[in-house]
Amino acid sequence: MTDYFARHRPTLDQALDACARRHSWTAYPESPSSKIHGEEKPRAGRARFEALLGTDYPLSQPGEIGRTGAEASPYTGKPLGISYPKMDADTLYQGIAAAMPAWRRASPETRIGVCLEILHRCAGQLFENAHATMHTSGQSYIMAFAGSGANALDRGLEALAYAHKAMADVPASASWERQFGKGGAARLEKQYHLVPRGVGVVICCATFPLWNGYPALCANLATGNPVVFKPHPSAILPVAMVTSVCREVLASAGFDPNLVSMVADTRDEPATMALLQHPATAIVDFTGSPAFGQWLEQNCRDRLVYTETAGCNSVVIESTDDLQGMAAAIAHSLCQASAQMCTSVQNIHIPAGGILAAGAPVSFEEVAAAIVAEVERHLENPQVLCGTLVDAGILRTIERYRQLAAQHGRLLRDSSPLDYPEFPHARTASPLILEVTESARDIYRDEIFGPVSFVIRGNSIEDCLRDATTNARERGAITSHVYSVNEDFLASAVSAYHDAGASVACNLVGMPINFAAAYSDFHVTGLNPAGNACLTDLAFVANRFRIVQSKRQR
Amino acid sequence: MTDYFARHRPTLDQALDACARRHSWTAYPESPSSKIHGEEKPRAGRARFEALLGTDYPLSQPGEIGRTGAEASPYTGKPLGISYPKMDADTLYQGIAAAMPAWRRASPETRIGVCLEILHRCAGQLFENAHATMHTSGQSYIMAFAGSGANALDRGLEALAYAHKAMADVPASASWERQFGKGGAARLEKQYHLVPRGVGVVICCATFPLWNGYPALCANLATGNPVVFKPHPSAILPVAMVTSVCREVLASAGFDPNLVSMVADTRDEPATMALLQHPATAIVDFTGSPAFGQWLEQNCRDRLVYTETAGCNSVVIESTDDLQGMAAAIAHSLCQASAQMCTSVQNIHIPAGGILAAGAPVSFEEVAAAIVAEVERHLENPQVLCGTLVDAGILRTIERYRQLAAQHGRLLRDSSPLDYPEFPHARTASPLILEVTESARDIYRDEIFGPVSFVIRGNSIEDCLRDATTNARERGAITSHVYSVNEDFLASAVSAYHDAGASVACNLVGMPINFAAAYSDFHVTGLNPAGNACLTDLAFVANRFRIVQSKRQR
Repeated sequence: MTDYFARHRPTLDQALDACARRHSWTAYPESPSSKIHGEEKPRAGRARFEALLGTDYPLSQPGEIGRTGAEASPYTGKPLGISYPKMDADTLYQGIAAAMPAWRRASPETRIGVCLEILHRCAGQLFENAHATMHTSGQSYIMAFAGSGANALDRGLEALAYAHKAMADVPASASWERQFGKGGAARLEKQYHLVPRGVGVVICCATFPLWNGYPALCANLATGNPVVFKPHPSAILPVAMVTSVCREVLASAGFDPNLVSMVADTRDEPATMALLQHPATAIVDFTGSPAFGQWLEQNCRDRLVYTETAGCNSVVIESTDDLQGMAAAIAHSLCQASAQMCTSVQNIHIPAGGILAAGAPVSFEEVAAAIVAEVERHLENPQVLCGTLVDAGILRTIERYRQLAAQHGRLLRDSSPLDYPEFPHARTASPLILEVTESARDIYRDEIFGPVSFVIRGNSIEDCLRDATTNARERGAITSHVYSVNEDFLASAVSAYHDAGASVACNLVGMPINFAAAYSDFHVTGLNPAGNACLTDLAFVANRFRIVQSKRQR
Repeated sequence: MTDYFARHRPTLDQALDACARRHSWTAYPESPSSKIHGEEKPRAGRARFEALLGTDYPLSQPGEIGRTGAEASPYTGKPLGISYPKMDADTLYQGIAAAMPAWRRASPETRIGVCLEILHRCAGQLFENAHATMHTSGQSYIMAFAGSGANALDRGLEALAYAHKAMADVPASASWERQFGKGGAARLEKQYHLVPRGVGVVICCATFPLWNGYPALCANLATGNPVVFKPHPSAILPVAMVTSVCREVLASAGFDPNLVSMVADTRDEPATMALLQHPATAIVDFTGSPAFGQWLEQNCRDRLVYTETAGCNSVVIESTDDLQGMAAAIAHSLCQASAQMCTSVQNIHIPAGGILAAGAPVSFEEVAAAIVAEVERHLENPQVLCGTLVDAGILRTIERYRQLAAQHGRLLRDSSPLDYPEFPHARTASPLILEVTESARDIYRDEIFGPVSFVIRGNSIEDCLRDATTNARERGAITSHVYSVNEDFLASAVSAYHDAGASVACNLVGMPINFAAAYSDFHVTGLNPAGNACLTDLAFVANRFRIVQSKRQR
């Protein structure tokens, strides 16, 4: 049997080093460019994706009782026509139960080696997975290859590094000897075994199915817990492809492939509850809506529940030395992936009295106009940046806020369809931007999924900061931004966001501000309603296994 | 200000080494002998304890609305006459809230240094605390000094070592730089801050108030969370003494003493719920009854809950090469601290056909008789070993099982009061031992608190093992023992206990088998109903703080 751990050890070591130093490092190149990969790989990946259209996806799992799946491409509007196994949970779980003992007995190194090989082979199918992600999640091809592909693989490797650290902290054995009174020395040989919790259900979201999918997969599988993927009904194929790789690698390493399985469903016939209610489910990883995330946290008390949901991410603008750079950075966030990212900015707080830009006064209206202008500029070639809308409901959301604009303020920028010559039927929408005051806080304190944002006129910069941080604390935030050239204000803003349980980025320009770096950024704090877990830290992995020991007198 | 971290760094380093190698080590000598400590320290400790009797315990906390406390010594039957602050929770929590920001801002090293100094000073008051523990928890003086004293301090230091590891895993800052497309390099300076959860309520048990008290204190305080001790109404004084030390050290280090406080109560006017329901309570550490522990796990959904409760600890006897040594070891567990320890043995499984001892057949009856004989031998001088009963309810429990004996089997050994010449009114009971078959499993599958045990006649050794491990899985176990000279049986027994989520000790003789070694034994697996936490591992500490970050473009 191949020693996957030895083969991939250098990668793991580099990941451990990156987690410790938190510098910029990647194991998986994020560019799909043929300059790196050659012409053949991208073409073959596309061909493999296209060959799956209109077929029964090949996944042989115990408990298949039919077929399901109703994905449609946001680019073409057409059904993919791919069917997936419709599963009987009890039968599937029987198969998983049979697979568990050998996996549990395997050493942490063996399990980590299998996970490393899985990530390696997933890196080898990023092209077909990018097409699958594009035509389900609606991401652009570039984003699907990078954000939901290579960058997500890095997060999986990061989780694996932490799982390794947590398990390596427990020695396999110890010799122990001491005196008890006059009775002589007691000498014990002790052995410590790591015991997994049970089945881990990994609920993936529609827009970035693998962003938290890889980390949850690796955190669970490395610590001995089988994984049942539950993809979003809109985005099954990317998860199915990863499931296939997992099963293939497990089998190649001599393990039962049922250690990783997938339960697909449709909106009309959801399958999630049967998994959550199954007594063998011990862990739930969830990425998706705040409402369901909080339901899980409250109602799955017997399980370990790790959530990443969403919040109303904010920007507070106090001053800048680069108005256009700042406006471009913010505008980029409003456009990127049509603001369907967990890191997309929604609420832009600007004081009514305006700001100082490069030392000169700039009015509220001018700052707002600069952002809108940069949105227009980003939209000159929108397809790569904006992608499509994952869900037709987002068009209704946009319409609703368009109606609300007049009532609560005014429409700063209207949304309209984007023109993708290659995809005339793509479901698209450019950013809708409302200008409001704090009196409209009832409508901007919810996470609004999709390209709807607010420029919020605060009475003062202090009001802006107070409003933004209060919303982070009470409604959640995954990213927060502050722009200021004033050191005192920056310090107080960082402190205020931290007090609200939120991380904060200062003065980011010239880069995609939505970007979260594996091995460097702690993603989600767990201190506000946008999720209870950090991807990734020790707390994300340390409780997924427990320790039993045996001791024996010599 | 004294640099406590630097002063105690060698102790921390030795603890970290001991946790890694899990050999035998202690920072705190467990013997109260005057050969080690001299004559004066023990005398002064006793005098300090006696001076507190009949007084208002000096503890000045915000929100005192009266006095409470109704402790009585199990040795004398007399009230201690000590009053403690009766607290208004809201006012106390306001004081705690005011104390938190500075503690949160303090570096992990500063906080760990304060905790190390607390442990150091607590080690200096082990004599008075031993008298306090003796006359509240009912432990013998020796046990109170060692088990609830020095050994418990070691567990506190162990938790501190893990807290240090978990926090040290997060660097304070990082430099990060990468290219984004053609836009040039983005260079970010990142800072990572550890943020505590909130108030930690530490609910201590009656019999070993500080066994989990020190670990929970250290795990919380080191990670920045204030601690509110909630002692059991029967055993307030040992916890009050520790609270005083904490407040003294905090003040000496320039912090608000309200970072550690105590809320005492009586059985008639319990104060626990007000603490659990307070919105600022973020963490609950509980040691006590399985019923309340499970209630907490189910009902404190918004909190982190760490529990150690109890189970029906078992012994399975297959064979031995030292019948008397084995019988003495088991009998010691039945007697020690009147079987009021979380590690006390309750269910002794012996096959009906008897066992092999040193290669010769020994009948069921002979094995049972050997255990009873060793109990009698241990009872020749019972005071040090047995101590007293913490609660008069245990006498009623004994009476109940005495009545049940005839109905379910027979009385193998009756319980009777023990004679302590120095304490003629001591509340005591020698072990009650029932002989039963598996048909009596309804009565032996509960944890019975106090000196009640069962010798259970199994049809076969396989039945014995199956019954014992089933009970561990379904009803909980903190310790489990197997005696066998058969390697195959030992291997299958270890495997069966591990499958039941239980640790197991094999062939322990010549030492107190109840003993759990800090830095070496993982105490409680968290995989069976005897508790959800391990004291101590990374999972016990890693989620008590979260990480927020700020990043800034250079």
